[in-house]
Amino acid sequence: MSTSLHSLTDHELDAELTRSRAEYDTLKARGLALDITRGKPAPEQLDLSAAMLSLPGDNDYVIDGIDCRNYGELPGLPSLRALFGEVLNIAPESLIAGGTSSLETMYDVLSFAWIHGTCDAGAPWSSAPVKFLCPVPGYDRHLAITESFGIELIAVPLVSDGPDVDAIRELVAGDPQIKGIWCVPMFSNPSGVTYSEQVTRDLLSMQTAAPDFRIFWDNAYAVHALVGDAPEVLDVLAIAAQMGNPERPFVFASTSKMTIAGGGVSFFAGSGENVAWYLGHLSQKRVGQDKVNQLRHVRFFVDVNGVRTHMRKHQQILAPKFELVTTILRREVGDSGIASWTDPRGGYFVNLEVLPGTAKRVVALAKDAGIALTPAGSAFPSGNDPRDSHIRLAPSLPSEAELQLAINGLCTCIRLSAAELVHRDRAADVHRSSVSV
Amino acid sequence: MSTSLHSLTDHELDAELTRSRAEYDTLKARGLALDITRGKPAPEQLDLSAAMLSLPGDNDYVIDGIDCRNYGELPGLPSLRALFGEVLNIAPESLIAGGTSSLETMYDVLSFAWIHGTCDAGAPWSSAPVKFLCPVPGYDRHLAITESFGIELIAVPLVSDGPDVDAIRELVAGDPQIKGIWCVPMFSNPSGVTYSEQVTRDLLSMQTAAPDFRIFWDNAYAVHALVGDAPEVLDVLAIAAQMGNPERPFVFASTSKMTIAGGGVSFFAGSGENVAWYLGHLSQKRVGQDKVNQLRHVRFFVDVNGVRTHMRKHQQILAPKFELVTTILRREVGDSGIASWTDPRGGYFVNLEVLPGTAKRVVALAKDAGIALTPAGSAFPSGNDPRDSHIRLAPSLPSEAELQLAINGLCTCIRLSAAELVHRDRAADVHRSSVSV
Repeated sequence: MSTSLHSLTDHELDAELTRSRAEYDTLKARGLALDITRGKPAPEQLDLSAAMLSLPGDNDYVIDGIDCRNYGELPGLPSLRALFGEVLNIAPESLIAGGTSSLETMYDVLSFAWIHGTCDAGAPWSSAPVKFLCPVPGYDRHLAITESFGIELIAVPLVSDGPDVDAIRELVAGDPQIKGIWCVPMFSNPSGVTYSEQVTRDLLSMQTAAPDFRIFWDNAYAVHALVGDAPEVLDVLAIAAQMGNPERPFVFASTSKMTIAGGGVSFFAGSGENVAWYLGHLSQKRVGQDKVNQLRHVRFFVDVNGVRTHMRKHQQILAPKFELVTTILRREVGDSGIASWTDPRGGYFVNLEVLPGTAKRVVALAKDAGIALTPAGSAFPSGNDPRDSHIRLAPSLPSEAELQLAINGLCTCIRLSAAELVHRDRAADVHRSSVSV
Repeated sequence: MSTSLHSLTDHELDAELTRSRAEYDTLKARGLALDITRGKPAPEQLDLSAAMLSLPGDNDYVIDGIDCRNYGELPGLPSLRALFGEVLNIAPESLIAGGTSSLETMYDVLSFAWIHGTCDAGAPWSSAPVKFLCPVPGYDRHLAITESFGIELIAVPLVSDGPDVDAIRELVAGDPQIKGIWCVPMFSNPSGVTYSEQVTRDLLSMQTAAPDFRIFWDNAYAVHALVGDAPEVLDVLAIAAQMGNPERPFVFASTSKMTIAGGGVSFFAGSGENVAWYLGHLSQKRVGQDKVNQLRHVRFFVDVNGVRTHMRKHQQILAPKFELVTTILRREVGDSGIASWTDPRGGYFVNLEVLPGTAKRVVALAKDAGIALTPAGSAFPSGNDPRDSHIRLAPSLPSEAELQLAINGLCTCIRLSAAELVHRDRAADVHRSSVSV
């Protein structure tokens, strides 16, 4: 980014720095306590599922001929698998309805492969060094799971239609230690990117040196549009099978950002072989699923139209907050060249890019002013953004009034850190000039 | 067991075998379809928690200052930890309220140790061969978890006051590969044994060659008395600390057999170091707990007296079924010396011992007659009961009428297999005599 700060005279730049500092001191003096770190639903969104607090209701516990109050039915309730099969464009027999956390499902799937190996390769992944690809910026909790297993992460760029397939193709073709890639194919966390069908086909068809290469396809935001209707969900299992790589995708999804956050239902999907492998290992750790909670979701949504209607209500609450964020950013730092940002059509995040070398400083300044942001670098392997320019904004939780305060304050921090950077650079230039003279 | 069959003349024995076969053929002809394989609650028991189907209820979602509908609070709801801390005699800060499956919690804890090592020893358990002790007969799902990790199981005898401590002491003192033991300290599955305080102290104080030795203390039936009140729960964390081995016990419990089977709340408890270790790894896989379900449990039970009152209702349903089982066994095979059984004061199982070498045959005969029993040997490592004499009976699920049919039918199978065995033995004796002449 080239900034308008660069065109200032030394004197003007000094004045700008002084002005920014004063503005920041005023911000700090307000003693804010705001939090836009995580993609948590707002209370108003949770109110949309108020009916769930009394569901399934008196004497309602039998569905599909199953008493939901007893053990068993490891693949989950048939009715819920059918309903979300329609939502996620997955055949019900390929879709497993599980517990309350899709993150846990991903961790479990990775740990099964780690301890036992996948269905198509005998060796446990733990038996040799493992590497994973992660499109960046990516979801910090994905990265953390793989890093907790000692898996080496290799960053690949995420561009407007998905991850950079050419870069990925070269990597996976040459290195059998690369066993997987993290993907959030729709309204990606945090960039908001939705993968094109071509990118999806390329990922599912490319040659990989590892025979047991897996795509961890976390379709967390499949129906979480901020503008209009969400695009149709691609049938990745069918595409993978067509491409001759049926075992490649491990698909994940969750209702956490539809109903109760942390109390929804998670989903796993894959080929017949993958599902059998998953259930085989899962049967060692669970006697069945919480079918009462699954029944609660069937009763609440009723059918796929129930899901769509419900998600439009979320959209009505979320869209104005995203609009507010981009409006303030445009007004406050829009013409200065010191920041750029995404205007997502779905998902939970705005991707903010500040001047390279200032993201950590912006987050630290904001923190000292009582505005909590996701740590800079958290969307990159080892928490290290090589350009130190990326910040993830999560506008969902705060009220619009709080969000306005937070983003205005953030802009103050962006301006100050930019002025500091340009001032420092110019001082260094002067120093270099004087040295070279 | 010496049996009255041995005192029969050859002719009488032939007649008994013919009679038993006819009796069995009559049983088979009835075409029963009964299942006493698993410790599942009966519908009447599940009805006791009918109110949970509408809880927490409209507009009830805040407790302890926490909105239960949103992410977070990985250790679980403080109110529930306090309530069950009282039930389980564990300080609330040492008790974590988790998801719906304590089996999953055990699997997770083992997998964390497997992948990362415990808090007091750096090496992952996967880095060298691992052995576990299992008091036998034991819980088949415990054994299956460890076996799925490739852990070698060493059986140790379970006697009337707990596992044979002398045998255990010698094993763990001499072999650093022995990293753990499975224990069900109260109303053990399947023997019904409750460990004495002395055995508990011995287990917590003994010298172990492995510095990171752990007791997987699955207190699954702490309040599940069949007669009178359950004994007071020992404060194993305090005893372990007194003995200088604070890290030794990993404690587990669950409400699955109190409220909704597979939809209750599971618990983990341990020393401060163990809890920090557990939460550290758990935080990689979960953003929080299903706090709405935890709130549901707080509202349902209210306090420790609510738990005790509720468990007495379970007792009123279960005790007559256990009484029925032992009454029929006493009447049908009581004087014959061909079977013995436990008369448990709590838990979910009756331990049946038949003539050595006949348990598999009894289970197969019963299966062919439409009576499903837990597979013979399943309470032993590798499913191998060296004496082939143990059968686990699970009387909870069927109605009393079904149970009566099942146990009467079982007795028919016991009598036939005993007559077959004694007949075969005698024929072999005759053969041996004629060979030696």
